[in-house]
Amino acid sequence: MNFRMIGRIISFILIVEAIFMLPGMVLCAVGGQMQSALAFLITIGIIFATSSALWLLCRKAQKGFYSRDGLVCVGLCWIIMSLFGALPFTISHEIPRYIDAVFEIASGFSTTGASILNDVEALSKGMLLWRSTSHWLGGMGVLVFLLALVPISGRSDGFTMHLLRAESPGPDVGKLVPRMKQTAIILYGLYILLTVLDFIFLVIGKMPVFDAVCIAIGTAGTGGFGVLNTSIASYSPYIQTVCTVFMLLFGVNFSCYYLLLCGKIKNVLKDEELHWYLGIAVFAIAVITLSLSLKHFYPTFGETLRHSAFQVGSLLSSTGFATTDFDLWPAIAKAILFSLMFIGASAGSTGGGFKIGRMLLVLKMMRRNVRQVLYPQKIQVVRVNGRVVDEAVLRNTNAYLCTYVMIILVSFLIVSIDGFSTTTNITAVVSCFNNMGPGLEGIGPSLNYSGYGTISKIVLIFDMLAGRLEIFPILVLFSRSAWKRR
Amino acid sequence: MNFRMIGRIISFILIVEAIFMLPGMVLCAVGGQMQSALAFLITIGIIFATSSALWLLCRKAQKGFYSRDGLVCVGLCWIIMSLFGALPFTISHEIPRYIDAVFEIASGFSTTGASILNDVEALSKGMLLWRSTSHWLGGMGVLVFLLALVPISGRSDGFTMHLLRAESPGPDVGKLVPRMKQTAIILYGLYILLTVLDFIFLVIGKMPVFDAVCIAIGTAGTGGFGVLNTSIASYSPYIQTVCTVFMLLFGVNFSCYYLLLCGKIKNVLKDEELHWYLGIAVFAIAVITLSLSLKHFYPTFGETLRHSAFQVGSLLSSTGFATTDFDLWPAIAKAILFSLMFIGASAGSTGGGFKIGRMLLVLKMMRRNVRQVLYPQKIQVVRVNGRVVDEAVLRNTNAYLCTYVMIILVSFLIVSIDGFSTTTNITAVVSCFNNMGPGLEGIGPSLNYSGYGTISKIVLIFDMLAGRLEIFPILVLFSRSAWKRR
Repeated sequence: MNFRMIGRIISFILIVEAIFMLPGMVLCAVGGQMQSALAFLITIGIIFATSSALWLLCRKAQKGFYSRDGLVCVGLCWIIMSLFGALPFTISHEIPRYIDAVFEIASGFSTTGASILNDVEALSKGMLLWRSTSHWLGGMGVLVFLLALVPISGRSDGFTMHLLRAESPGPDVGKLVPRMKQTAIILYGLYILLTVLDFIFLVIGKMPVFDAVCIAIGTAGTGGFGVLNTSIASYSPYIQTVCTVFMLLFGVNFSCYYLLLCGKIKNVLKDEELHWYLGIAVFAIAVITLSLSLKHFYPTFGETLRHSAFQVGSLLSSTGFATTDFDLWPAIAKAILFSLMFIGASAGSTGGGFKIGRMLLVLKMMRRNVRQVLYPQKIQVVRVNGRVVDEAVLRNTNAYLCTYVMIILVSFLIVSIDGFSTTTNITAVVSCFNNMGPGLEGIGPSLNYSGYGTISKIVLIFDMLAGRLEIFPILVLFSRSAWKRR
Repeated sequence: MNFRMIGRIISFILIVEAIFMLPGMVLCAVGGQMQSALAFLITIGIIFATSSALWLLCRKAQKGFYSRDGLVCVGLCWIIMSLFGALPFTISHEIPRYIDAVFEIASGFSTTGASILNDVEALSKGMLLWRSTSHWLGGMGVLVFLLALVPISGRSDGFTMHLLRAESPGPDVGKLVPRMKQTAIILYGLYILLTVLDFIFLVIGKMPVFDAVCIAIGTAGTGGFGVLNTSIASYSPYIQTVCTVFMLLFGVNFSCYYLLLCGKIKNVLKDEELHWYLGIAVFAIAVITLSLSLKHFYPTFGETLRHSAFQVGSLLSSTGFATTDFDLWPAIAKAILFSLMFIGASAGSTGGGFKIGRMLLVLKMMRRNVRQVLYPQKIQVVRVNGRVVDEAVLRNTNAYLCTYVMIILVSFLIVSIDGFSTTTNITAVVSCFNNMGPGLEGIGPSLNYSGYGTISKIVLIFDMLAGRLEIFPILVLFSRSAWKRR
């Protein structure tokens, strides 16, 4: 394990985190909330001290940076970011209990959007901004951000690759261009472009600028933290529609946008994952709209369609905003939303969940298995977009599903200690692990996670981070062999 | 596809089914319920006619019987058995709707024990016996029974192997002895021995002989149909304890008993699956007893222990008997019971579920994956009981899990149309698919499946049969390539 290199990266990451706290601090200072501004300042001081100490400790570079170093590094970075990111909340007493603050910011970085706050509006504006900023940083990945900007002592492409692989979602991280650094820059470029577009559309709809910033960056990271207690419900239908569209856009594989920019429209139109993504969205919206219309839930068809499209966009992209309390919807609508929580967004997007690309692979493997059982002699391959998928990718996808199911089951067992209903506990775990935010019943869109005990919160924090980093970077930290020096 | 051979096997199976209806018919005739006796007689007549016609149609033997023929044959056999097995209920008007009757008997054959009856005691004794008999036949497998007894035109061992493989549970069907026919005989010998022992212990506890027969064969198949509306709750604590012990015994891999009889005690004591099975049982009983004691659910510690052990034995072995309404238990106890529903019994037992052997493989694969991610160069193997597990078995286990998760998700979606609560729908699907019987909330141990609509019932019937046959024999029936003649 190359601990020195990992230490240096962590010290870099901490500086990035401190820099992103500055807007929140300024906002608090300008708004006259000096206690909150001071909390930010103290945190930034602590971060600089820690970062410098770490840098000095890890001065002498070691050689060799392998896949496992990448995983451990990413896992540690995210945990440490969450531990430091929670400080402003606790120091300012805006979220007095430290575990709650860690839950809130881990939920932010992992783009979950699950909250323990009963009254979001009681938070100072600076804190609200920091909360939403964490979504934006977590969405595309803070290490990707670092790699795009900072030249860490002119390392090789393999080094960048290991970190990018460990942090980016999806079964198979493709390089957009031959060099990883360029890939990171392109990804962030597209990300910023889409975020700014979202912001502009929101401001056109007369949303207050502060709200528009928070909602735009929260949508971009497919996070789900809002600035009002009613989430998006009290904004105009136009704004809700803008949010729906952008949530769905951020759930698309970013390589599609890159291909679009390069003029390769045909490749985008042929993309199987995109077909499924849109197909699932249309199907879910249609069935939910139908089921709501049959029960006359909303006065007009337009309103029914708007709410169902919003909720489908929100859960399919794993954002977690809400315009209505869908826990009151009919069983079939809730069942579809629950299933969307599992499926999640496209690979290579900022969304969470199991990912449509993976689901597609699992379905194709199922078909292959049936055929293989029927005709054992014939060799069957799995193709996506016409290309044969490598068996190693299929094996990893299988491994991912197994681990996914096991973690959900074990988490559900532990979380049940707190005595909430079965549906509450299942959806809490599924929602956190898939980086959604809201669940059903006790943690429905109008409620929050404050009722859970400390142990449950730690488990849910683990689930959120493991879900965002696609399990392994967090899981390897528990493996003895990861810590062996050799 | 060797349709002629399949037809002949089906005609054999139908005769076996008719023979097992005879005790029910006699009981009805003796008890003076002539309408029910007549219903049995008519059914037996229909079965003989169908069977003879099928036999004549498939007279000329074709050569070649492959793995796919075995699968299709087993899948068809079980569906046809269910369709004919339901006739006595409907003809006698004891269960007027045919779909309900099919649900009931498919639940019987698949050893699920899920019922649509509001009043079990209203059924005639003959029907109750037939219901429980279906558990016994389904538990060890009706084709295994046929193969153990009947010499089907002196076929090769491969032929027997394909059928046995398709019908028997577990990730890897081992031969106990070199010849498959002998293996089938040994399995049924052990099965009969344990059933008789169970019966004797129940009769010693002063259970009425009729009840003892039904409960013994229902326990043997780990089915769960009782003869009273209160399931096992109104019997004495001694009887409940006997049931607990035998439910757990029938959830053990039968090869352990064979090894015991051969004097190979050491091999049994070293069996990893057995360790896990007992470990899970003890852990679950301990935690549930503790959680119930803390809330003072039952007056004495003895009673608490008895109820928790009974319910754990019932769900771990996938039987589904109940002595108390566990839907009222605390959340953590319910969460553990819900997890037990997933895990299921040991491979090679009569119990259902995902199987502990498979879970063990999945856990070991998880560990391997973490290690492989950490050290990509090193080749890692998975060992069970000290022996390296074949990669094909691991691949199949993975494939099984994927299909398992997908079927649960899709079934849950369809079943949700009927508008029950999320927990009801999830547990209904999980319970049927894992061949348990009861679920939580709307289908808790004191309630039943009668509220579901026809579509949901068909889906649940599919789940029950697919669960018992471990998915593939039922799934291949939906594959076009299975029906190709070549």
